[in-house]
Amino acid sequence: MNKDLPPARIKLRIEFGGLRLGPGKADLLAGIDELGSISAAGRRMKMSYKRAWSLVEEMNAGFAAPLVDSARGGAGGGGASLTDAGQRVLALYRALERRVTEDGRPETDALAAMLADISGQT
Amino acid sequence: MNKDLPPARIKLRIEFGGLRLGPGKADLLAGIDELGSISAAGRRMKMSYKRAWSLVEEMNAGFAAPLVDSARGGAGGGGASLTDAGQRVLALYRALERRVTEDGRPETDALAAMLADISGQT
Repeated sequence: MNKDLPPARIKLRIEFGGLRLGPGKADLLAGIDELGSISAAGRRMKMSYKRAWSLVEEMNAGFAAPLVDSARGGAGGGGASLTDAGQRVLALYRALERRVTEDGRPETDALAAMLADISGQT
Repeated sequence: MNKDLPPARIKLRIEFGGLRLGPGKADLLAGIDELGSISAAGRRMKMSYKRAWSLVEEMNAGFAAPLVDSARGGAGGGGASLTDAGQRVLALYRALERRVTEDGRPETDALAAMLADISGQT
């Protein structure tokens, strides 16, 4: 049986001065885009309502134009959507991720091939 | 005056099953290569002796061939060096980093250009 290479999970964090952009914020933006709601997007990530809002506020303050347009509602939360800036930031982050996950496949495969074969240990 | 784009700091973490490889372990490998000592490499990173050893043991166990060859010494620590596998893992990690920092420059520049201009706030 050929040795299957274990899949690599990539976590990319970009820091500009005080602002951090990583997988959590990117997935939150993607969830808002998909679900139309900050609280629903946060819930899907097992993130508290407060935490999801706080990340959105941090992103909206860190960029010149807000990334998320929202009507803060009651317990259910108002609707929310990505602005053009939000779509663009998410797309740029995903493009950077692909630099590693797709373009970097030769390196991640080479690393994977060097791992100890845990499953086959005797 | 042209707006200078704030520099992006990239943190890349690769996870294979239980093994994580990120900037801390990569810098530790680079320090061992440069300084010839696990404790000196850890000290330069403000890492405890115990933590530096623990990261090295984790890497040596996670890969099929050890990454660091060392003579565990006394308080001063014995000498240590990277094996061929260690050199290779470090080079592969740095190559993946460059996928983002160099090849990904268009994206990081585009993100930086979208940031709120904190310094110029009125």
